[in-house]
Amino acid sequence: MSTWEDRKTWLTALSAPVPPEIDTPLRLARFELDHCGKLPGRVTLKADSTLGEGYEIRKTDSGYLLLGGDTGILYGAYQLILRHFSASPLPTGVQRPFYGLRMLDCWDNMSGDIERGYAGRSIWFEADRFQYDPARIRQLGRMLGSVGINVLCLNNVNVHQPAQLLLTDLLPEVSRFAALLRPFGVKLMLSIDFSLPMQDGLDTADPLDARVQAWWTERARGVYAAIPDLAGFLVKADSEHRPGPNTYGRTHAQGANMLARALRPFGGRLVWRAFVYNCMQDWRDQKTDRPRAAYDLYAPLDGQFDKNVILQIKHGPYDFQVREPVSPLLYAMPQTVKALEIQLAQEYTGHQIDLYAMPGLMREIFDQMGKAQVKAVAAVSNLGRDDNWTGHPFAALNLYAYGAFSWDPDSDPGQVVRTWARLTYALPAEQEQALVSLLLSSREIYEKYTAPLGLCWMVSPNQHYGPSPYGYEFQAWGTYNRADRNAVGIDRTEKGTGYVTQYPPQWRALYESPDTCPDNLLLFFHRLPYGHRMRDGRTLIQRIYDDHFEGCAQAEQMAETLNGLIGLPEPDRAEAQSRMQLQLRNAREWRDIINTFFHRFSGAPDQRGRKIYD
Amino acid sequence: MSTWEDRKTWLTALSAPVPPEIDTPLRLARFELDHCGKLPGRVTLKADSTLGEGYEIRKTDSGYLLLGGDTGILYGAYQLILRHFSASPLPTGVQRPFYGLRMLDCWDNMSGDIERGYAGRSIWFEADRFQYDPARIRQLGRMLGSVGINVLCLNNVNVHQPAQLLLTDLLPEVSRFAALLRPFGVKLMLSIDFSLPMQDGLDTADPLDARVQAWWTERARGVYAAIPDLAGFLVKADSEHRPGPNTYGRTHAQGANMLARALRPFGGRLVWRAFVYNCMQDWRDQKTDRPRAAYDLYAPLDGQFDKNVILQIKHGPYDFQVREPVSPLLYAMPQTVKALEIQLAQEYTGHQIDLYAMPGLMREIFDQMGKAQVKAVAAVSNLGRDDNWTGHPFAALNLYAYGAFSWDPDSDPGQVVRTWARLTYALPAEQEQALVSLLLSSREIYEKYTAPLGLCWMVSPNQHYGPSPYGYEFQAWGTYNRADRNAVGIDRTEKGTGYVTQYPPQWRALYESPDTCPDNLLLFFHRLPYGHRMRDGRTLIQRIYDDHFEGCAQAEQMAETLNGLIGLPEPDRAEAQSRMQLQLRNAREWRDIINTFFHRFSGAPDQRGRKIYD
Repeated sequence: MSTWEDRKTWLTALSAPVPPEIDTPLRLARFELDHCGKLPGRVTLKADSTLGEGYEIRKTDSGYLLLGGDTGILYGAYQLILRHFSASPLPTGVQRPFYGLRMLDCWDNMSGDIERGYAGRSIWFEADRFQYDPARIRQLGRMLGSVGINVLCLNNVNVHQPAQLLLTDLLPEVSRFAALLRPFGVKLMLSIDFSLPMQDGLDTADPLDARVQAWWTERARGVYAAIPDLAGFLVKADSEHRPGPNTYGRTHAQGANMLARALRPFGGRLVWRAFVYNCMQDWRDQKTDRPRAAYDLYAPLDGQFDKNVILQIKHGPYDFQVREPVSPLLYAMPQTVKALEIQLAQEYTGHQIDLYAMPGLMREIFDQMGKAQVKAVAAVSNLGRDDNWTGHPFAALNLYAYGAFSWDPDSDPGQVVRTWARLTYALPAEQEQALVSLLLSSREIYEKYTAPLGLCWMVSPNQHYGPSPYGYEFQAWGTYNRADRNAVGIDRTEKGTGYVTQYPPQWRALYESPDTCPDNLLLFFHRLPYGHRMRDGRTLIQRIYDDHFEGCAQAEQMAETLNGLIGLPEPDRAEAQSRMQLQLRNAREWRDIINTFFHRFSGAPDQRGRKIYD
Repeated sequence: MSTWEDRKTWLTALSAPVPPEIDTPLRLARFELDHCGKLPGRVTLKADSTLGEGYEIRKTDSGYLLLGGDTGILYGAYQLILRHFSASPLPTGVQRPFYGLRMLDCWDNMSGDIERGYAGRSIWFEADRFQYDPARIRQLGRMLGSVGINVLCLNNVNVHQPAQLLLTDLLPEVSRFAALLRPFGVKLMLSIDFSLPMQDGLDTADPLDARVQAWWTERARGVYAAIPDLAGFLVKADSEHRPGPNTYGRTHAQGANMLARALRPFGGRLVWRAFVYNCMQDWRDQKTDRPRAAYDLYAPLDGQFDKNVILQIKHGPYDFQVREPVSPLLYAMPQTVKALEIQLAQEYTGHQIDLYAMPGLMREIFDQMGKAQVKAVAAVSNLGRDDNWTGHPFAALNLYAYGAFSWDPDSDPGQVVRTWARLTYALPAEQEQALVSLLLSSREIYEKYTAPLGLCWMVSPNQHYGPSPYGYEFQAWGTYNRADRNAVGIDRTEKGTGYVTQYPPQWRALYESPDTCPDNLLLFFHRLPYGHRMRDGRTLIQRIYDDHFEGCAQAEQMAETLNGLIGLPEPDRAEAQSRMQLQLRNAREWRDIINTFFHRFSGAPDQRGRKIYD
């Protein structure tokens, strides 16, 4: 029987548990270097607090000199170790993270459930209270610290009772938990409920009400007395039935600034999620277009947010669909501090059953967005209490990659995957190459059999695994494909909903016409007849059929490749293989259901005569 | 503030609570007659145990002589009261129920949830234990006894932990509960888990294993020691993932008989649900046809069931859809004791929000089935902890009507509705007539705006309220409409799935051809092109549009009628009106979504130019 202690993910070089008495990053750096197996020479540490999170590794006669700031010295130690054990070159010169805030948002409820969690229950909550193994929290800290993630948001953005108590009665426990992660350079953040003052006797949560302001000021004081280095608060307000400033006719800037001012004396940040849209849309309404919502709401507020407010924006305008264009809001609001939000939890991308490696997604987002558009990054966690931490053992790659890209958004996906694979598994070169290729291709294959051409939301409602092409069609979520016997898609051009006009000119020009719009976003931006001729000469309907057939066939090839990876250790190999069987079943469902759906509508035969069910 | 004590449903004449010390039906009959307000003369009671459940009311010089058996005397008293207060004629001669077993199946979980419950939480379970107000249980008994329901199955057929303990640790509490209902002529029944012996240490639940047989014999002995008049056990086996004899390669006759033999020494009955089908169907499979399942499984077993086994068969072959033909199994198995099962809980018929009066349904079922096909009746309860007992105050009609039809399956729907209305509300004649008409028309209207022409399963998956025309289309439940751009429906004729061949000749002849098949079952039995010409000259697609427009318009008329019922007492009037607003919204969703769905597929315009959304 393996336990979580045996499942080191990319930290196989660090076999000794971190002793509880190690209480600073510097001491931890020393411990890790002394216990990681053989390094090519002695590493001398030199703390230099002016370096902050930065570090420098210098070669010396007898080994290395590592200079680093308070946490930089730890990051340097981990890089030294990970690069050595993955046979990667050491970095030269002072290394600093591109983003100062590298957050992991955990959607853990105090019940122990994790919203959209696919790796088991919460590692720290159960039965409405804290419940954890401190050794496991230290190992978690080590995973995060080793890739430079420096903030962990402890609780779900949908703040269910009794998580409201984290700011009051449970502060001593939050403080103890924070202490466990502190040596790893990881600070806590807390998700808060905007209406909290009303649960404490006030009759309003109006951000312009002096009593409310005073209440939050006092509350922040209490929280920071317990956890002086708390990173701040995260808020989901006026979104999917959560309370917010709209109730009082106040703007989101007013709401956010009120909280930010309570945090400012303590150096805290207020992270405000921009995931706000009308979740009670009438499907008959073709004017309202959900992807427009965030830009329409926030862009006019640019300049109104305080400096310690961070507007956290999902990478696409919808909700972590398999394929979305970069959110136009990320190009906007130059006077606002923005954070990019991605989702490591595979909510719409296979539930950590189907393979979906995200380094390529990260590369594309940073390329298309421009890394300097945001000042911080956040990712929804894919972790859970499963022994292997991430449900599918390969899903740990996505957490690792997030760390790599949030430190250096110019990272190369191939190199990230290779490094992770080499650190995690000691495979013969040919198998390592096969695994790397498998992972690098997995996203495109998943997209092909599920949602090619930018088709969103053909997924089973609520659950979000498996196909349901009309499941969301008449619901209130603003998620429609409007397929009929002639055409499919939403016209989001200037003549349609106008969504495309939210983009800067070069992107707008690209997306505005089906002639220039990338194939993988074609049906995101355009409504097209099934006979539409693609640039490659095929009709739209034939391309839909082809992609689904090809994607499924490629999944079958992935299964064969995986079978050949006999060097994978157990239980990773068995876990990966059993999940691959589920993935194949899922891929066949997607292929057949989507093809049948469009065949029933279009009546068009497959030109290659493959089986489409009636 | 009203409480449940103020909400008497049809028992407005009985204002005094039943005192706890009343412990026999005879004493209760006396109490009720003495406390029901003014009757035209003194009623003398004469017990005659040879009459059993029967009674006779004779006019005397000074009033009435009521003769009756142990429970018959109570039934006679209730009839005397209810008929007097509804100004209905008294029955002449000895009255006996047509069915000896008139069961109410409650799907109450010990958590307090009721599966498919739309009137609040359980009246007797909460937080995994018994929790109830004895006075409320007595009032429940009075409601059931007043209409002759004589068995209450206490717990959900899906037996979730800890309901398994009802047969063991919780027997003393079951016994106390049984005592509360006993004076009302109501006996308890318990839903059991076929695999129960395995939870007690056996390694099998094989019905042919002597240890299993001995275990159940011993268990039955224990149960009957605590509740000597228990009606028996109810079992859902090999159905929707419940355990059953199939696991051991045994037939359902072998499984049922094993349990029945354990009960026989105590006079207990074993009720075996015939709701068994493949709930893991591949949607690609067009040969498997769920409505065939029960007949295919059970008909060959006729003659193999013990005499104290009752095979409980849902009225239609699917699952309480808005419109189904009578299950062919109800016409079959002449050597088997069968029970008819209907569902008062409005799972697919409006969640006790939308009006859906069932007396017409009951009339049709008994007419089409022939009342003598079954020896018992069962209904899934629509009761819950809401003050008004049934969520919608008018939904109590369905419980009342079930009692009436289970006593006399030749009952007249109009008379049943009128009697219920008169007993429940003292309305002026014109308003009473309006209410009666409203209720009598409600079922047809609901059918028209939701599922005309026998179209099943276009309802939101899992929840079963509101339209989702393709929501079940690619799922594993065997519930498909296979709509495409040309046609809709399943061909269940001999050339199709052959389902129609399960019927006796006269029904088979009726259903086999679209020329003779009743319109309201047309798409249940046939797959037809949208241009199919109906007998009234309209095309199928036009008829789909017309029905949905008409049904919704009729719902709007119902709302107006309801508004005019100013004589309805509060809070009934407010409850009915607020639910009607929800019904109207639901009706518009059904109208528009189903019309849009078929318009997108067929491309056919509405010939009357009404609004169909794109």
